[in-house]
Amino acid sequence: MSEQSLVEKLEEINSRAAFNRWAGLRVTAAEPGLVELTLAWREDFGQYNGFLHAGMIGALIDTSCGFAAVTTNEWVMASHFSVNCLAPARGETFVARARILKAGRKQVFAAAELFAVSEGRSTLAATGQTLLVPTQDRAAPQA
Amino acid sequence: MSEQSLVEKLEEINSRAAFNRWAGLRVTAAEPGLVELTLAWREDFGQYNGFLHAGMIGALIDTSCGFAAVTTNEWVMASHFSVNCLAPARGETFVARARILKAGRKQVFAAAELFAVSEGRSTLAATGQTLLVPTQDRAAPQA
Amino acid sequence: MSEQSLVEKLEEINSRAAFNRWAGLRVTAAEPGLVELTLAWREDFGQYNGFLHAGMIGALIDTSCGFAAVTTNEWVMASHFSVNCLAPARGETFVARARILKAGRKQVFAAAELFAVSEGRSTLAATGQTLLVPTQDRAAPQA
Amino acid sequence: MSEQSLVEKLEEINSRAAFNRWAGLRVTAAEPGLVELTLAWREDFGQYNGFLHAGMIGALIDTSCGFAAVTTNEWVMASHFSVNCLAPARGETFVARARILKAGRKQVFAAAELFAVSEGRSTLAATGQTLLVPTQDRAAPQA
Repeated sequence: MSEQSLVEKLEEINSRAAFNRWAGLRVTAAEPGLVELTLAWREDFGQYNGFLHAGMIGALIDTSCGFAAVTTNEWVMASHFSVNCLAPARGETFVARARILKAGRKQVFAAAELFAVSEGRSTLAATGQTLLVPTQDRAAPQA
Repeated sequence: MSEQSLVEKLEEINSRAAFNRWAGLRVTAAEPGLVELTLAWREDFGQYNGFLHAGMIGALIDTSCGFAAVTTNEWVMASHFSVNCLAPARGETFVARARILKAGRKQVFAAAELFAVSEGRSTLAATGQTLLVPTQDRAAPQA
Repeated sequence: MSEQSLVEKLEEINSRAAFNRWAGLRVTAAEPGLVELTLAWREDFGQYNGFLHAGMIGALIDTSCGFAAVTTNEWVMASHFSVNCLAPARGETFVARARILKAGRKQVFAAAELFAVSEGRSTLAATGQTLLVPTQDRAAPQA
Repeated sequence: MSEQSLVEKLEEINSRAAFNRWAGLRVTAAEPGLVELTLAWREDFGQYNGFLHAGMIGALIDTSCGFAAVTTNEWVMASHFSVNCLAPARGETFVARARILKAGRKQVFAAAELFAVSEGRSTLAATGQTLLVPTQDRAAPQA
């Protein structure tokens, strides 16, 4: 599958998730085993002090890892994810880049980095990882 | 501090986080070291198949743990959190219960359970944990 | 299976792991979904300052969770484990208690607590969790 | 500090940990923020099926991350570590490479990869991460 059609496939899955539509999450790059998601800051995403809420950080880590897994497995479901909050996540744009560490028959391991982009400067705000289980069930993908 | 005034203190912090206001997250119980948050389901919270999005699950785990820490420390900031997705999170209401495992001077360890309540039946949908760092900086609480 | 025969079954698996024999790890209680392991302190287990080495803590968390999974599934293999180091782990004896959070067909989630016992006083030194995958392969259990 | 003197400093710390001496763990490379540890296989390290025991995997992940932190902070103590078991860890030699993700004043985030080397072929067997807290206390380093 070409990079372009991978992005389209993931955008189609992305568009079915109401939370992703609400957030305006976009798939901005994809190749087998690699996915980039981009989120434009909005007030609604803030925690107390106006930084990106941990829930949004988790959403970016988990979704980018899930989409990376979907580039090689048909459907997957997250069973575990973890997030390291390295620096306050503030910026106009947030970019999550996920890659597959290992795609097995029973499990897919993926990792992601989340960058906060402010005035053209990119800061590593968080890292994370997700463990996903392939599923035949089209009704239960991670999206 | 009485249980009632603890709930009020946490609700005041809760009300300052735009994401929490958008989600309609409520603090429904609190005592030193223990916090319960409740979230009523809305379409916007869904992933592809209508289950609660991993981002919302992460938000409930991380926020309930952060609020549990706030019952004993003035201000905290999450540095790491992880989530186990035990069962599909679907229901009319979601209840997160967090407790402090250990509150140290430099670090607070907290753990949470997330229950999905559907037609009066409660299912353990996720468990998680958060590691928080106390901070003097009022501008940087976990909320 | 009676509690006694469960302990015997787990001790038989335990005895096949060279590391467990070296450490003198013992299965001191077991029932479906619950396992207790006990380790007597030895100098060899120490890190720089004489506390229990993180590797030994990880071994106790991972092995107790794996054995808890074996009380309900035939064979399992750990795919992820994590450890919270709550307090310096020093004592004459260490006791790990693991329980299954959820035993699914494709995955088993387990959690454990590690207590350091010193002069009859027990301290919660670490908590952890393990995600295990059931396997038919008798050659690849978690032990 | 030169790379050579960093290796010597870490080997000196390494030599004080009884577990590390028992295992024969060696510091084979170091520069600011990066550390490589090497372990030669021995029967004692095995779990049931002769693969490297999860405790040894955890020891390599945690110790390499701790040593990476020591290249930039005087003393550190691990508060959390996690391990992904990607593939059966079997080989004649195991090599852990850790790097600092972020070294803050209150916390150091590090990540490691563990390779199993067999007949000259290197396989990524595990990945992991560790969260460490700097401490003034010379009596409490992570080693």
